[in-house]
Amino acid sequence: MDRQAPDIVRAAYAELIVTDLQASRRFWVDLLGFVVTSESEDALYLRGYDELIHHNLILTAGAAPAAARLAFRVRTAADLDLAEAFFAALGTRTARVPAGITPGVGEAVRAEDPLGFTVEFFFDAEPAERLQQRYDLRRGAEPARLDHFNIVVSDVRAAYQHYRSLGFGLSETIEDAQTLYAAWMFRKQTVHDVAFTGGEGPRLHHLGFFAHESHQVLRICDILGSLQSESQIERGPGRHGVSNAFYVYLRDPDGHRVEIYTSDYFTGDPGHPVLRWSVRDPRRRDFWGHAVIPSWYTEATTVLDLEGHPRPLRAEEQTAEVTVGADGFTR
Amino acid sequence: MDRQAPDIVRAAYAELIVTDLQASRRFWVDLLGFVVTSESEDALYLRGYDELIHHNLILTAGAAPAAARLAFRVRTAADLDLAEAFFAALGTRTARVPAGITPGVGEAVRAEDPLGFTVEFFFDAEPAERLQQRYDLRRGAEPARLDHFNIVVSDVRAAYQHYRSLGFGLSETIEDAQTLYAAWMFRKQTVHDVAFTGGEGPRLHHLGFFAHESHQVLRICDILGSLQSESQIERGPGRHGVSNAFYVYLRDPDGHRVEIYTSDYFTGDPGHPVLRWSVRDPRRRDFWGHAVIPSWYTEATTVLDLEGHPRPLRAEEQTAEVTVGADGFTR
Amino acid sequence: MDRQAPDIVRAAYAELIVTDLQASRRFWVDLLGFVVTSESEDALYLRGYDELIHHNLILTAGAAPAAARLAFRVRTAADLDLAEAFFAALGTRTARVPAGITPGVGEAVRAEDPLGFTVEFFFDAEPAERLQQRYDLRRGAEPARLDHFNIVVSDVRAAYQHYRSLGFGLSETIEDAQTLYAAWMFRKQTVHDVAFTGGEGPRLHHLGFFAHESHQVLRICDILGSLQSESQIERGPGRHGVSNAFYVYLRDPDGHRVEIYTSDYFTGDPGHPVLRWSVRDPRRRDFWGHAVIPSWYTEATTVLDLEGHPRPLRAEEQTAEVTVGADGFTR
Amino acid sequence: MDRQAPDIVRAAYAELIVTDLQASRRFWVDLLGFVVTSESEDALYLRGYDELIHHNLILTAGAAPAAARLAFRVRTAADLDLAEAFFAALGTRTARVPAGITPGVGEAVRAEDPLGFTVEFFFDAEPAERLQQRYDLRRGAEPARLDHFNIVVSDVRAAYQHYRSLGFGLSETIEDAQTLYAAWMFRKQTVHDVAFTGGEGPRLHHLGFFAHESHQVLRICDILGSLQSESQIERGPGRHGVSNAFYVYLRDPDGHRVEIYTSDYFTGDPGHPVLRWSVRDPRRRDFWGHAVIPSWYTEATTVLDLEGHPRPLRAEEQTAEVTVGADGFTR
Repeated sequence: MDRQAPDIVRAAYAELIVTDLQASRRFWVDLLGFVVTSESEDALYLRGYDELIHHNLILTAGAAPAAARLAFRVRTAADLDLAEAFFAALGTRTARVPAGITPGVGEAVRAEDPLGFTVEFFFDAEPAERLQQRYDLRRGAEPARLDHFNIVVSDVRAAYQHYRSLGFGLSETIEDAQTLYAAWMFRKQTVHDVAFTGGEGPRLHHLGFFAHESHQVLRICDILGSLQSESQIERGPGRHGVSNAFYVYLRDPDGHRVEIYTSDYFTGDPGHPVLRWSVRDPRRRDFWGHAVIPSWYTEATTVLDLEGHPRPLRAEEQTAEVTVGADGFTR
Repeated sequence: MDRQAPDIVRAAYAELIVTDLQASRRFWVDLLGFVVTSESEDALYLRGYDELIHHNLILTAGAAPAAARLAFRVRTAADLDLAEAFFAALGTRTARVPAGITPGVGEAVRAEDPLGFTVEFFFDAEPAERLQQRYDLRRGAEPARLDHFNIVVSDVRAAYQHYRSLGFGLSETIEDAQTLYAAWMFRKQTVHDVAFTGGEGPRLHHLGFFAHESHQVLRICDILGSLQSESQIERGPGRHGVSNAFYVYLRDPDGHRVEIYTSDYFTGDPGHPVLRWSVRDPRRRDFWGHAVIPSWYTEATTVLDLEGHPRPLRAEEQTAEVTVGADGFTR
Repeated sequence: MDRQAPDIVRAAYAELIVTDLQASRRFWVDLLGFVVTSESEDALYLRGYDELIHHNLILTAGAAPAAARLAFRVRTAADLDLAEAFFAALGTRTARVPAGITPGVGEAVRAEDPLGFTVEFFFDAEPAERLQQRYDLRRGAEPARLDHFNIVVSDVRAAYQHYRSLGFGLSETIEDAQTLYAAWMFRKQTVHDVAFTGGEGPRLHHLGFFAHESHQVLRICDILGSLQSESQIERGPGRHGVSNAFYVYLRDPDGHRVEIYTSDYFTGDPGHPVLRWSVRDPRRRDFWGHAVIPSWYTEATTVLDLEGHPRPLRAEEQTAEVTVGADGFTR
Repeated sequence: MDRQAPDIVRAAYAELIVTDLQASRRFWVDLLGFVVTSESEDALYLRGYDELIHHNLILTAGAAPAAARLAFRVRTAADLDLAEAFFAALGTRTARVPAGITPGVGEAVRAEDPLGFTVEFFFDAEPAERLQQRYDLRRGAEPARLDHFNIVVSDVRAAYQHYRSLGFGLSETIEDAQTLYAAWMFRKQTVHDVAFTGGEGPRLHHLGFFAHESHQVLRICDILGSLQSESQIERGPGRHGVSNAFYVYLRDPDGHRVEIYTSDYFTGDPGHPVLRWSVRDPRRRDFWGHAVIPSWYTEATTVLDLEGHPRPLRAEEQTAEVTVGADGFTR
């Protein structure tokens, strides 16, 4: 790879389009416990309790649910130029976004990446008040920070190669002799900043947020049950084989999927070894052997292009993982 | 009811017949973490870390898996006579068991109760070493004490009336206008010592053991996953609506079901109010709304009569709960 | 003892006099997380999340901090007469309080007990809304229910004998060959409803409330630190040797001491064995060996007589435990 | 700074000299729960459950307790040359250690750094079996990985400047207008790889190991109490203001201090902001306001030079933090 990749620090924020901002506020802020950094008539800027920049999530009111973009922070301002050149060289459309367009974030470069997603790179960010020790404010799942984007792609191997060219490390895979079914890749020193699940893509599978302890994962489930909102608990709590995360998957009022998880591991060493899971190991997706609810494999969020139009879906280029042994209850 | 009931203190122990004592030892002792009070060539006497009498569980080697009896401790030696008279008046067979027959337990009265179960009542018990603060010995789920017997009965209302006549309080039910689908009844000051699930009975549904904190429930699942024994995790971890217990159901090598749970509540007040769940509330069995795996409703342990022969099953006298809305995944 | 004692069910509530009801409300309700059942201009009626009767704590505005009374629930209305006769036979003053005087509680008998405390016995209680599964409402330490009264008495042995005559069981002691330094006694099936610490008495040492898990104990400390109210954390979190409780002691704005604890054990068996700790075992008060802060031994709440006047203190009749090896840091 | 610093990845391991290897093994392996990667007659090579290289800790039998060296992993083999040049330019002694000398580690460069410590840099490391999901093996505090070295230095500012020249970021400080009392610095994306406490130096204050959840910190205390080894619990559990860590400090059989902690935060962003604590904030060292036991400030481990001789101590060049308001109990 001879194009020089921008130095990406980490997954930083996503923008989701939601159809009822008040309903979304109730879910994300009142129940899940996200901090509101700022808000306008048609948008909320949210962050976790550990986050020191302006936001991890923008919820913007719109006509139909979608993921507008996935944003990564880069190490220096000069990395914006590298990002622009990198994607231009791939023949994809890019856009330079001046500072002041997105509250809390400086100048940015956006691109429609080869996988079909609108990605953004920014360096400047407005600092946010440090709330790491404001236990008095914590609510719900006490989300600490955005950890990763999990995306549905029609070709997992192509997604892997694209992110490898962007300098991402590979932590774990699900595979067999023929097929790469899923991959987890990182820039920061955790298991991932981005992961790929095979299927009709491009779609956003979920946003993953880190919480510090497992009782916080249990607590958000109890809160949802208390409010007879248990149908928003899609899957879990459970332990993933991949990444070792103790997880729960929730669906917001528009069906956007969010994972609250804890307990992955350090990946910052040089030569960090890849953990390869067989697609036939029932523990890969659930370390406790439970069947995965089909909606978790089949449903995901539409993604938008640079102008905010839905991206067309591409048929899968491989046998999707869900067709291997997915028969509802496995015992 | 004019027969005077024995003063029952609590569910105290069960005897299970297992087909491979070494496999059972590995599961119950090495993995789950039960304490071995004593053992012989063909039996293990186990207790939880908080238990101060000889055992909560006898595992006895035999040709086919079964539950030999469910034993309750009574308040005084005189309650043995009351127990014998109580069951004799019901026309059921009883037996007086001298001290020395069951290690760790004094004289006992056994009966084939009207529900089809062999129950035992004893007062004298050999004290066991106090291990409540031997954290150095704790393993697995760190089970503290036997909490309850959950039994499958063909007529839940008859079971309720029988245990009411034995002085049990009612804490929770699952019902609709026509039918009592399940009931939870107690002598000690927790949600239950015995619970009834409707179905082909008499069978033992599960033994419930108390652990102090939810992370202990999670830990036994992680241990089973580590050992590729995840298929022994039948259901959960999850939160029950009924009882508020945070639970997991495991299956031992013979298929005997064991629940490890934490977090129910005090029921010792006079006039403790009954919590009645609608059979249509999806949170009754799983507060987080997850479908119950069918095996949990359909599979249970054969029970033995006084001579150790399997009891015949009676057809259900009601619509079983499982037929209400049980369609695998509910979303 | 030939007087027939009333059948006491459990420690049920206490009334504390506080000097600034709004400051108290902020501490007990907003921070600690107690539920307000009802309130008037000069009083708050609070309960834990598991409590099914009207209150566990009355906070009443007054000129000086004090404990007005300690109230026990009895099993039947007839136990009120037994209580009145029991204390009358002891030559202590008693008073019959008609229903309607204390909100949420029916007719009651009060007495100035031989130890110098005003105690109350009631049977009728107004049911409270069941909030056990309203996780959405939980805050702070998520207190579940009042567990016990810990009182400072000038003669621990006399206190033990008095409560034994009231039918309390003995669970644990701190003692040496000559002296009983402290004792824990119970009616409900936990380690205690009342405990005695030797010192200038009568004074209320603390009210003990049960929480379900240790992370709830940690959380209230983090909240107090967040608000720069860490000086209200007097002692702990830590593990008691006695009772095995994982505890923290807080001081409310008037200096009333409250314990939030979890993880004691079942005491409901007949012949429950007593655990006797040597006063020389450094683990008795702190299983992790830490020195006890002197204020914990020396400071306590004044108690009031039937007319609401402070009770005079009696000199200790024994060597107080604090003089044994109390040298600040012990290592 | 024009010398090019080696690219240090993280604190990787320490070698401690212990006087009774079997006693040390019992403490570090049997109780604390470290994994033995390999051992010889006079040394143990230990790691945490998440660690993927050979060791985080070498325990070597010797005549007197000491810290032989603190080892950092570097990003490439070429960084060894940079490290050698960097320290040579400082006029300190260095040594090249061929591969094969230290089991599990390749070629290394050692130096006597300007602060008086023997530090090591290595790149090659033998991979260790991945045990991250071997929950069946976990014991004690379930330590996951070495996180940091905390060292006592006579001049905190000089220590800060030295590590800044090595490319470390600054996360937190304790200071006042005149004095830098303590500083926390990082290479990996956590709060620190190295921290400085002012006092007679050079000495090793403690090794810090990460555990995933707070209940693991509590558990090792309970285990030590169970074994009447509570005197090895020096301080805590508690919450640090600095770093937000939930911690406990233990002393091994030779008095070497080890911290087990959980719950710090991500520091990997460019321009990560420094959190500066006033030396007068009682929450800086204990967020819950508890006094720090004096031994924690005054006792530390002797460090050795390249030949294994104890380094002479230098008098403090500043007012040590412990003299500010340290009066035993603070309330």
